[in-house]
Order: sequence, then C-alpha cells, then structure tokens
Amino acid sequence: MSSEPATSVPTDLDLSLDGGALTAQLVDFPSESGDERPLADAVERALRALPHLRVDRMGNNIVARTELGRAERVLLAGHLDTVPIADNVPSRVEGDRLYGCGSSDMKSGVAVQLRLAATLPEPNRDLTFVFYDCEEVDADRNGLGHLVTRHPDWLAADFAVLLEGTEGYVEGGCQGTMRIKVALTGTRAHAARSWLGDNAIHHAAEVLGRLAAYRPRRVEIDGLEYREGLNAVDIRGGVAGNVIPDECVVTVNFRYAPDRSPAEAEAHLREVFAGFPVEVTDSSPGALPGLDRPSAKDFVAATGGAARAKFGWTDVARFSALGVPAVNYGPGDPNMAHKRDEYCDLPVIAECERRLVAWLS
Amino acid sequence: MSSEPATSVPTDLDLSLDGGALTAQLVDFPSESGDERPLADAVERALRALPHLRVDRMGNNIVARTELGRAERVLLAGHLDTVPIADNVPSRVEGDRLYGCGSSDMKSGVAVQLRLAATLPEPNRDLTFVFYDCEEVDADRNGLGHLVTRHPDWLAADFAVLLEGTEGYVEGGCQGTMRIKVALTGTRAHAARSWLGDNAIHHAAEVLGRLAAYRPRRVEIDGLEYREGLNAVDIRGGVAGNVIPDECVVTVNFRYAPDRSPAEAEAHLREVFAGFPVEVTDSSPGALPGLDRPSAKDFVAATGGAARAKFGWTDVARFSALGVPAVNYGPGDPNMAHKRDEYCDLPVIAECERRLVAWLS
Repeated sequence: MSSEPATSVPTDLDLSLDGGALTAQLVDFPSESGDERPLADAVERALRALPHLRVDRMGNNIVARTELGRAERVLLAGHLDTVPIADNVPSRVEGDRLYGCGSSDMKSGVAVQLRLAATLPEPNRDLTFVFYDCEEVDADRNGLGHLVTRHPDWLAADFAVLLEGTEGYVEGGCQGTMRIKVALTGTRAHAARSWLGDNAIHHAAEVLGRLAAYRPRRVEIDGLEYREGLNAVDIRGGVAGNVIPDECVVTVNFRYAPDRSPAEAEAHLREVFAGFPVEVTDSSPGALPGLDRPSAKDFVAATGGAARAKFGWTDVARFSALGVPAVNYGPGDPNMAHKRDEYCDLPVIAECERRLVAWLS
Repeated sequence: MSSEPATSVPTDLDLSLDGGALTAQLVDFPSESGDERPLADAVERALRALPHLRVDRMGNNIVARTELGRAERVLLAGHLDTVPIADNVPSRVEGDRLYGCGSSDMKSGVAVQLRLAATLPEPNRDLTFVFYDCEEVDADRNGLGHLVTRHPDWLAADFAVLLEGTEGYVEGGCQGTMRIKVALTGTRAHAARSWLGDNAIHHAAEVLGRLAAYRPRRVEIDGLEYREGLNAVDIRGGVAGNVIPDECVVTVNFRYAPDRSPAEAEAHLREVFAGFPVEVTDSSPGALPGLDRPSAKDFVAATGGAARAKFGWTDVARFSALGVPAVNYGPGDPNMAHKRDEYCDLPVIAECERRLVAWLS
C-alpha cells in the first residue's frame, strides 16, 4: 500500500489560472463542512506567497489584507466549505458551464477573491480578504461568526462584499432563517395490538398537512421582492418493525423576509403549528437591503449590476450586525446551490472578476 | 480480573423449582435474539439429565421427545429469545406478579415446557418439546423455520401447542403480518429557494392522513373475533437542515385477520395507498383458527379455557403449513410483550402447568 495522496487531488492552488480554471481546481479540492483544513492550508500557502498581503489565521479561517493607508477599506468574504459531495466531484466543463459540487456555492466566488488578491497589489482601496469555514452547517459552527466574536478588529471595513452566488447581480439584504422541532408523542405498544398504543407518526399527518397547504408570503422591501418558504427538512420516527412508535420529530425550516424579526417569525410559526409543541433550535436574523446607503449605491453604480432581493440567508447579516454595510455579489447561480447537477457559468466568473478589478483599480 | 461468571447469572437450570421460580431463573438468564447460546446450552444440559427423553440439537434449537409408542404425539413449542433488555433484568416479584424481560414473552411458557418435561416421565400421549431461537427478529432467522426446513421429521406430531402468552386462554390461529415501504420522492433544492424544489416529506402528509383515518376491520372467524391494525412503524426523510428533501420513506405494518391471504392483504394495501408506490418488504401469512378440528376441540375441552382469537403473529402458522393442527396456549400476557414493565401473573403460570399436566396424565 502506498501512502501517496491520489494524484487527482491537488495540494497547491495556482492563482495564475483564470477564474474559471481556478474554480475547477477549487471544486476538485474537496472541502465538505468540517473537512476544510487541507483547502484552508492551501489558501494560506497561496496568500503567504504574495508579499503585499498580511495574513492571519484562526482555525480554518484565513484573513489577508493590504496595508496601504488608503482612505477606505473594502472587505471581500467567502466560505471555503461545501455541502456533501453527491457524485459531482471532480468538476467537468460542458460548453460554457463548469459542473461540480461548490461550483456555484461558492468556489467560483472564492476563485474571484483569490484572483483579486493575486492581481491587485496596489488597489485604490485597502482590501481585506476573508475565507472561512462551516457556513453550510449549524450557525454556531460558522467560521465568520467565530471571527466576529474573537477578532472583530480583523473585520473592520467601510464596506463588505460577500461573494455568495448572485449570478453577477448585486443583491441587497438577506432573508432570515429559523429551524424548529415539532415533536409528536404517543404510546408504545406491540403492532399486533395497535389499539393499546397511540401512534406518534400518525399524529405527524396534521403537521405535514399544514405544511403542504401553507401559502408562503411574497413582500416588497426597498423595491426588492422577497419570497418566503416553510418546509419540513427532516422527519424521524420509529422504534422497530413490530412496535407502535411513541415519538416522531419533524424539523421545519422557515425562510422569512427581513421585515420580520426573529421574534415575529417565531410567533408566526407558533400560530401555524397551534396545538403542537414548537421548539426553536436554530435562528439567524435577516438583513434589510439598505440599498439607500451611499456605499451601497456607489458599489451598485460601479458594478453596473441591477439590484435584487437575496433569498438565501448569507453572512451579509453578520456584517450588518457589526455596522458594516454589506451586499452580496458573486458569480455563482443561487438556483444551483446544493443540487447534484450544480454548475456555474464560466463567462459570469470572468465578468464578476473584471467588474471588481475595474472598481478597485 | 477473575474469569468467574457473575454470581447473579446462573449457568444451570433447576427444574425442581415451581413454574414461577423457574420463570424467574429464566428471566435472569439473558437471551436476547442472537445471544441464546448460553441459555440453549443450559436447557440442553437440563433435558439430557432426564433419562426418559431423547434430545437432539441444531444450532441453538433443542428438540426432546418421549418414545413410548403412544397412539398420539403432542408437540409443545416455545422460543428462548427475548427482545432487547430495557432495564428490566433481573426479575423481581411484586405480590402475585413477576416482572422482567421475557416474563410474558415467553419465558413463563418455556418454564411450563421444562416443568412438563421433568415431571411427566410417562405421559398419556408421546410428547415432543421444541425450544428454538430468533423468534423476535426477521422471519428468515427463526429457529423453528430452520427446523421446518432441515428436520421436519423432528416436528412430526398429531397436534401442537405453542406456549406463547395467551393469559391461559386457548387462542386459535394467528393474524398475518405484512410490512411495506411507501417511498415518496421529490426534487432537492436549497431551502432558501424552496419553490425550485418539491418536498418529499410534504408528500407523506397524504400517506399519514390515510393511516390516521383508517378504520381497522374486526371480523369473526370460527366464533372468534379478530382485530386488524394498520400502522406506520417508521418514517425517515431529510438531507440537511437547509435542503428541500427529495425522499421520504414510510414503513407500514399491516396486521390482518387470517381470512385474508397474503395476496389479498397486499391488494388491500395497494388500494389503501392508491397513487403511491408500495413495496412489500416482509410477509408472514396468518393461520385460520381451525377450532372445528377434533384435536383442537379435545384440547380446548381438556384445558377448560375459553377460546379466543390470536392477534400477534406466532409460529402456530408454521405448524399449520406443515399440516399439524396447532393452537396458542401459554401463561404470558400478550399485552405485556415488548414493554419495559413486562410482567407475568404467577398464579396463571401454575394454572397453565396444572391444566396441561391434567390433560397429559
């Protein structure tokens, strides 16, 4: 047995590649949430090779910055992790599309960050590049969240761009997300004498029925339309093949427009599931679009992109909480996120890089 | 470290104890399905010590018989295994009740078998005692099933009594059991853009709704009332907390009266779940009570017990398939089977033994 790594997994990143080829290299470098270390190591090595950057690291989170004394500092952020690979690595190119896990969410954005880091030694604004881990899992594991808590000084900036996929549009704000558990209970009994028990799984019929019948709201804020969603993301119940189960747990995810606070979102869920026990297990507030602020207006004008609403919860809300105006702007297609056939349009990667270089040069 | 067994676990059975005390000794001798060997060894040793019995063994299945040349042969059968122990071993006595794992299902029946083997050296009918393993798990592991296939001659008899718990009643036949999987499918998508996906868990609402609304049939056969049951015994769905799931599987157990064949039971389930995919994963036919047959009538009269329907699937169906008339008659309480607070009434154990001794003397 050889202990050599498989030759198809790279250990170094080549920042001289164009954005599309660099995205492919990143996709071929597996980094499921919790397993980002090898990729974080490679990013750190690549950045430390650039003499114009100061590099800091905490865990698998890398922060690199120029220190040119410019009047303004722009922060460019992206997460290194992906959802679990689903037979979609290594990457492949078909026509203008690059297929593969993370191609849209968000290794194409990370590729643009790395390209800017490598090619802009003297930008017109000081730059801070942030690469972080565990964005695709529970909020309390989020690397950017850990940086906010432990090194807020590393994140000081006048304006932040999160390179989550927006297909090259500027997206304002983000929706909130809340997860709840609805635990149904019953009485265990032998399945041959089911009338002595009370089937907890059957009680879930009403909960799922309300979800299936739910009509999600659409709402306009600062001229942008937000679409909500209420979905079961998990259901578990069952003891054995011959036992009436006494427990069934439904996990529900509510994605809500940023005109609701977390408290209002929770109150709404308690109303929808009236009569059932509701336990909030995870909550991240939304962020209002804030496109009326000067820094946001300037960026929108410079990139020439039309603004629209952000549906996915993104860490833009963490910058909002720090008081740093922030928008989403990245080459990925958010409709492709977490899909088996996830892809990214190669021309959009090049266009995103070109517009950011133009704005920062 | 000493290699001595813990003093609280017996290695030998004392067949001179009364039925209740012997049941307690059996309960204190753990024998979860798959781990019956030590108990099978002890049963074999105890039976080989009785000179009037011929003893055979296959795996953890023990068959002992008298060979007196009587005109009729009666077979008495019981399984040695229990469901997993749930903080209910060792046994304890409270008033007239013996608590513990297997006390009702079915170590009290096994105790009566062993008592008859020890105390009836010259019964009025030849006797065959069968002790077998793996009754509480998948049908293909059942020790009696293996004996039926490999040593059907060991099971030759004019009449069989399975000592599964009936609270001392004679129970005719048994219900059939069938398990199906109903797999709901959808389209995966990011939970933030749920309108791009199709939630498989939400599709389970209709399946669970039909189960919750189902009115199980009650039917009278040979004067006995059977009660059917249709229950979800498992449900699983979910990919991640931020993904619209593309699969949800509901496992359903149908316990049906023996006037339905397995094919008819399956047709009924396909009707109940019309519009959904139904896959049969496990099927064991019922057995008609057959209380009109002379051997059954004679036994019912001798034991003086009122006859009633058997709800749980029992191995009586295996004897039916061999052409051996068979009934369930044992001291356990079937309502106690598989419960944490499982117990058996001590006077019922004594009464069951007394009636069988009277019939066979």
